[in-house]
Amino acid sequence: MKTLSVNLDERSYPIYIGSALLSNSELFLPHIPARQVLIVSNETVAPLYLQQLKTTLSSLEVHELVLPDGEQYKTLDTVNLIFDKLLQERLNRNCTLIALGGGVVGDITGFAAATYQRGVNFIQAPTTLLAQVDSSVGGKTGVNHALGKNMIGAFYQPRAVIADTDTLNTLDDRQLSAGMAEVIKYGLIRDAEFLDWLTAHMPKLLQRETTSLTQAIERSCQHKAEVVAEDELESGQRALLNLGHTYGHAIETGMGYGEWLHGEAVAAGMCMAARHSEKLGWITADDVNRVVDLCASAGLPTNKPESLSADEMLKHMQVDKKVVDGAIRLVLFKAIGKAIVTGDYPRDTLISTLSAN
Amino acid sequence: MKTLSVNLDERSYPIYIGSALLSNSELFLPHIPARQVLIVSNETVAPLYLQQLKTTLSSLEVHELVLPDGEQYKTLDTVNLIFDKLLQERLNRNCTLIALGGGVVGDITGFAAATYQRGVNFIQAPTTLLAQVDSSVGGKTGVNHALGKNMIGAFYQPRAVIADTDTLNTLDDRQLSAGMAEVIKYGLIRDAEFLDWLTAHMPKLLQRETTSLTQAIERSCQHKAEVVAEDELESGQRALLNLGHTYGHAIETGMGYGEWLHGEAVAAGMCMAARHSEKLGWITADDVNRVVDLCASAGLPTNKPESLSADEMLKHMQVDKKVVDGAIRLVLFKAIGKAIVTGDYPRDTLISTLSAN
Repeated sequence: MKTLSVNLDERSYPIYIGSALLSNSELFLPHIPARQVLIVSNETVAPLYLQQLKTTLSSLEVHELVLPDGEQYKTLDTVNLIFDKLLQERLNRNCTLIALGGGVVGDITGFAAATYQRGVNFIQAPTTLLAQVDSSVGGKTGVNHALGKNMIGAFYQPRAVIADTDTLNTLDDRQLSAGMAEVIKYGLIRDAEFLDWLTAHMPKLLQRETTSLTQAIERSCQHKAEVVAEDELESGQRALLNLGHTYGHAIETGMGYGEWLHGEAVAAGMCMAARHSEKLGWITADDVNRVVDLCASAGLPTNKPESLSADEMLKHMQVDKKVVDGAIRLVLFKAIGKAIVTGDYPRDTLISTLSAN
Repeated sequence: MKTLSVNLDERSYPIYIGSALLSNSELFLPHIPARQVLIVSNETVAPLYLQQLKTTLSSLEVHELVLPDGEQYKTLDTVNLIFDKLLQERLNRNCTLIALGGGVVGDITGFAAATYQRGVNFIQAPTTLLAQVDSSVGGKTGVNHALGKNMIGAFYQPRAVIADTDTLNTLDDRQLSAGMAEVIKYGLIRDAEFLDWLTAHMPKLLQRETTSLTQAIERSCQHKAEVVAEDELESGQRALLNLGHTYGHAIETGMGYGEWLHGEAVAAGMCMAARHSEKLGWITADDVNRVVDLCASAGLPTNKPESLSADEMLKHMQVDKKVVDGAIRLVLFKAIGKAIVTGDYPRDTLISTLSAN
C-alpha cells in the first residue's frame, strides 16, 4: 500500500492506494469518529463491493443507500434522497458518510456531507480510475443543474481517500479509458516526463497490468495533491487541472448528461485545447499530434461530436464557471507539459477550433 | 453609523448599523467585486425597500428575485429557484448575492451563495430585528427539511452585514417582539448587566425609540461577533447561542413551520431552559421568574403550546443537530448570565419540564 498526503493544515488527509483496502478495517476505523455511518453507492458498484465494506465496518451502526448509476442522476434531487435517508435514520452531526463508487457518487455524497447539518465527516472510497486519480482528491463536491455542469457545490475535503485498486478489475473498458484521460492530463499540464512514460506504457495500462496501473495512480494523485495543497479554492494554479474541461463540459451538456463519459469529453477537450494553442502559434502541429495520438491510443475521442455545432458549444461554454465578466477563460498550452489559464486570445481562434471536425 | 467587526482572519467582515444605509452606495460598492449582482428579497420586504437598493446599486448589472414570505418556504426548492435565476441570467462566479429581508431570506440566500459555483460573494442586508441582531451575523446558512429544522446548510460568511435600522419602522409588532427574544438571549447567556438594562428599557424598545433600539442592536451584534470570532464552526462556546433553540425548534417543527415565529419559539424555549435548570437545582424560582417576566414584557410566549405533548416535543428534539450519540445536549443555566451546554442531566427533569403547562 502507498500512502500520500494532501497537505492542508488542519484539514490535511491521507490518500491510501493499494490492493484489498476495502477489507481493511484498521484503515477505515481511525477516520470514523462516531458509530453512525452511511455508505452511499450506486446500483452498479453496490452488488460488487457494498457487502465487503459493510463487513469491514461491522463494529459500527452502518446504513446504506444505493443510488441509480449515471451522470444524469448527479442532481439536487439525488442529494435530497441522501438527506431523506440521513434524517429518517436519525444520523447526527458526528456521523460519517462514505462514498463507494465513481466520480458521480463521490461528488454527490461529498456535497451531501458538506451540507448535512452544516458539514459532517466524509470518506472517499473511489472504485473507478477517474475517481481514484482525480475526483476523490481535492474536495470539489457538487451536482449539475439543467443549465450547467457542476454549477451547485462546495469545496469540502474528505477525512481520507481509500483507493482499492482491486476494484479496477471490474471496471469496464470504456470507464478505464475515460479515467485515463485525467491521467494523461497531469502529464500534459505539468509533467512531460510522465507523458513519455504513459506513451510507452499505454498498452500495459489498458491491459490492467497491476504495477503500471498503481504507478500511474500514485503519480496522478501526487500531482493532484500538490496542486490542491498550493491552491485549495482554485484562485490560481489549480485552474490548470481544468485542461479540456470547459470544452468537455460543453460536450457533456450539449449531448445530454450520460451520453459521453466525463473523461471522454475531457479527452476531446484536451485535443481541442491543443489545436487552439497551435492556432495561436504557441505549439506545433507535431505537439498537437502527440496529444491526439496519446488520447487515441487510450481509446479516447479526440474531437467533439460532429452533431454539436460551434454555436451550441459556445453557448454552453459561456455558462461555465470559468467565464469571468464575459471572457471564456481556457486552459491552453504554451508547450506540452506547460499549460496556462487565459481569456486573452482572438475570439476567431476559438470559433475556428470549435468548427473543425 | 456604528461599525463593528467580526474577526475571522482573511474572512473578517464589517457590520454597519445605522439609519439610511440602504441608500448609501459608498457603503455597498467596496464589498461588491464585480458588476453582476442578484438581490434576493421576499414579497413583504421587496415593495418597501427593493427599489431603494436597486437605485443605490444602479451603476451595476442588478438582477432581482422576490421569494414568497415565510419560514415554510425555507426549503431546498426555494434555493433551487435562486439557482435557476442565477443560471438563466448567466451570473458568473464573481457575482454578488445580496439578501434583503429577514432571517429566512438571509439563510436561504446565504446557502445559495455558499453553493452556487462552489461559493460566490455574499452581503447581508437584514431588515428585521431578529436578522439584524442574530441571523445575519456569523455565517450560519441553510434551509429546513420536512424532518427537521436547519438540517441542510453550510457555514459561509458574508462580506459585509449592512443593517439599516430605518427598516425596523415597517416591522410589525409581532416580528419586533420575536427579534427581542434573541436580544434577551445575549443577556441571559453572557451579560447580566445588559439584562438589567433591557428590563429597564423594554417599554422604550417596544415603542421603537431609536437610540435605545440602536444600542440594543449594537450590543447584541458585539456579543454575536465575539462568540463567532472565538468559535466559528460551533465546536464549543458558540453552542451557547442556541439557548432555547432545541426546545424552540421542536415547537416550530411540531406546530408546522410558520405557525410560531422563530423568536417566539426561542423565547418559550429559554423559559423552559430556565425551569429545567431550576429542577436541577442550578438556579432559583426567582431567577426563573426574572426570565419569564422579561420575555412576557417583550410580548413573547413563555411556554410551549399546550397542544404539543411532551412526547411530540421529545421526538422532535431528538433529531436536532445538538444530539450526540443519543444524549440531547441542551443549553441550561448555571446562573442568570451564565449558561452551559450539557447532555448530563436526569432524563426525568427534561420530561417533567416538557410536561409542565
